[in-house]
Amino acid sequence: MSRFWSPLLNQLTPYVPGEQLAVPHLVKLNTNENPYGPSPRALQAIADAAGDALRLYPDPHATALRTAIAQRHDLALSQVFVGNGSDEVLAHVFQALLNHGQPVLFPDVSYSFYPVYCKLYGIQARTVPLNERFEIEVAGYGGACGGVIIANPNAPTGLALPLADIERLLQLQPDRVVVIDEAYVDFGGESAVRLLGRHPNLLVVQTMSKSRGLAGLRVGYAMGSAELVQGLERVKESFNSYPVDRLAMAGATASFADEAWFEHTRQAVMRTRSALSTSLRELGFEVLPSSTNFVFARHPGFDAGWLAQGLKQRAILVRHFRLPRIEQFLRITVGTDEDCAALLAALRDLTATPASIQAA
Amino acid sequence: MSRFWSPLLNQLTPYVPGEQLAVPHLVKLNTNENPYGPSPRALQAIADAAGDALRLYPDPHATALRTAIAQRHDLALSQVFVGNGSDEVLAHVFQALLNHGQPVLFPDVSYSFYPVYCKLYGIQARTVPLNERFEIEVAGYGGACGGVIIANPNAPTGLALPLADIERLLQLQPDRVVVIDEAYVDFGGESAVRLLGRHPNLLVVQTMSKSRGLAGLRVGYAMGSAELVQGLERVKESFNSYPVDRLAMAGATASFADEAWFEHTRQAVMRTRSALSTSLRELGFEVLPSSTNFVFARHPGFDAGWLAQGLKQRAILVRHFRLPRIEQFLRITVGTDEDCAALLAALRDLTATPASIQAA
Repeated sequence: MSRFWSPLLNQLTPYVPGEQLAVPHLVKLNTNENPYGPSPRALQAIADAAGDALRLYPDPHATALRTAIAQRHDLALSQVFVGNGSDEVLAHVFQALLNHGQPVLFPDVSYSFYPVYCKLYGIQARTVPLNERFEIEVAGYGGACGGVIIANPNAPTGLALPLADIERLLQLQPDRVVVIDEAYVDFGGESAVRLLGRHPNLLVVQTMSKSRGLAGLRVGYAMGSAELVQGLERVKESFNSYPVDRLAMAGATASFADEAWFEHTRQAVMRTRSALSTSLRELGFEVLPSSTNFVFARHPGFDAGWLAQGLKQRAILVRHFRLPRIEQFLRITVGTDEDCAALLAALRDLTATPASIQAA
Repeated sequence: MSRFWSPLLNQLTPYVPGEQLAVPHLVKLNTNENPYGPSPRALQAIADAAGDALRLYPDPHATALRTAIAQRHDLALSQVFVGNGSDEVLAHVFQALLNHGQPVLFPDVSYSFYPVYCKLYGIQARTVPLNERFEIEVAGYGGACGGVIIANPNAPTGLALPLADIERLLQLQPDRVVVIDEAYVDFGGESAVRLLGRHPNLLVVQTMSKSRGLAGLRVGYAMGSAELVQGLERVKESFNSYPVDRLAMAGATASFADEAWFEHTRQAVMRTRSALSTSLRELGFEVLPSSTNFVFARHPGFDAGWLAQGLKQRAILVRHFRLPRIEQFLRITVGTDEDCAALLAALRDLTATPASIQAA
């Protein structure tokens, strides 16, 4: 608190990102990064761009990158908006498209940044409970509201919603924007991009941070009708003219030119996820069926906070949310096979601990 | 306009950045970029960072970069805030520190993004006229307000305000934040950083885009008391956890380790500015005394819009603002000696045009 702060600041509850520890030999399975890294073509494009031209501002319209995204998804350039990570894109979405003086609807268990954006822009939030299997029930998203935002696949549950349900949701709210946040869609979800032609109220958000292995570059994008994209541009041009720098632009654009790398690495992640899920179940964990690059799992006999702490002591980071309904779950990023072997060995060790020692 | 837009959007008047044309052999003197580019050390650091580690998120606290800035300015780490260009930093400043339900004060002729931020956050703006010599008169910045923002040196005039005036301004508004936007300070202004110890209400904003030749990288920063920086962090953590990407972080940090390059290039810009100002005066221009990497000039016999258009036809871009008081001025970036020679040749040509042809 400070007398110099705007009154708004006292209302905020900032988002807390996963730890970024600089510890050697850390097995980092807490922020859903891709173990395989970016396409070599992206790295080459960055190296090529790292020269004297950095003295010049980037293209404020990011035309090269937006063109690559439009081509990849078979859209017009006017249907693509880019930003400094999908977090920035989502912030603009809340301010530009969801702020109508009525509550915005999202699941009670979802990306924990959504309620943070609501507070930042003074938007009311109304959460809709997942069912007892942690699934989204779209029937709960009808009625008067300022808009809807759904992560699909959802985080941190990892569960995917079929496109038929997304379409039902779009029909429930024809006069409000429905945002589908597809950060993890390339690991097994169905993208709603194919519904764009029929639904002017649909906005699909994706990121380069997960399936493209470029979390360090900060590039996200939104796809929707031209009128939604124009709304986002209006806010962006009132906030920061050049949100995507020249190197990020070069690397992200080149990444779309290497579908072989994209395909190879995402298949590897899905294979490892399958093996990891099986091994966790063998250890007694309940593992939700994941369509993402992480698994969400709980053990009936061991406290999730205790497990997370024990893993951390063994230089393995996973994410544990102290939140209602999910406080007994761990969210574990699918790393390399070696990362997962290290995790499983540590969990084997920890779950062999007698309950009496665990409580002590 | 769209029924899906938040009502706010219809109130916005977005900022229009200078053109970024991709024309060969263009002499680009319209967006105040540095003709000498970044330090080779910055480029090397970027090349070193362009590897597999891009799969990982950046440090959300940007500790390496903030440490370099703190060392350069002899401040504590807690006094430094960084963002995706100083435009993003300024946006957060308006929302976090200047939104008190009272008008924010700034000069009638200044960076044209300030009124845009005000509209974005629903802040009232009150402009204070420059005097007839286009100077800021700090006596006009007293009284009840939400805060003050001054560009020093001012843009697009190029005129610097002495530190004694800044200190008077700080004393006039001890209970409100006074932001000094020092985008151009390294080209001849006096930084207010040295006043930070005495004034908890002072926030100084700088950028890597001008004197560090890194406009393409998007790194800006603010320096102030820890309580002001904490306020900015609170908004940032509610907007985007990782605004500065790994490559920008690496390049910007390394840039501070090459003071020789910094010194050599800024001196070269100032030398060229002096020669350019003299030559423009010889052509009949009135040139305001510049402490920046641009000159602001008008010709009593030639319309500024006509001159800008004539230059553009000759593949030379300068900035012309169709705004009250300054519509007869051109803002001309100090380029290389060759850029300036090309500009002067074109202006010699244009100002040799008889008035009768000019009007036709």
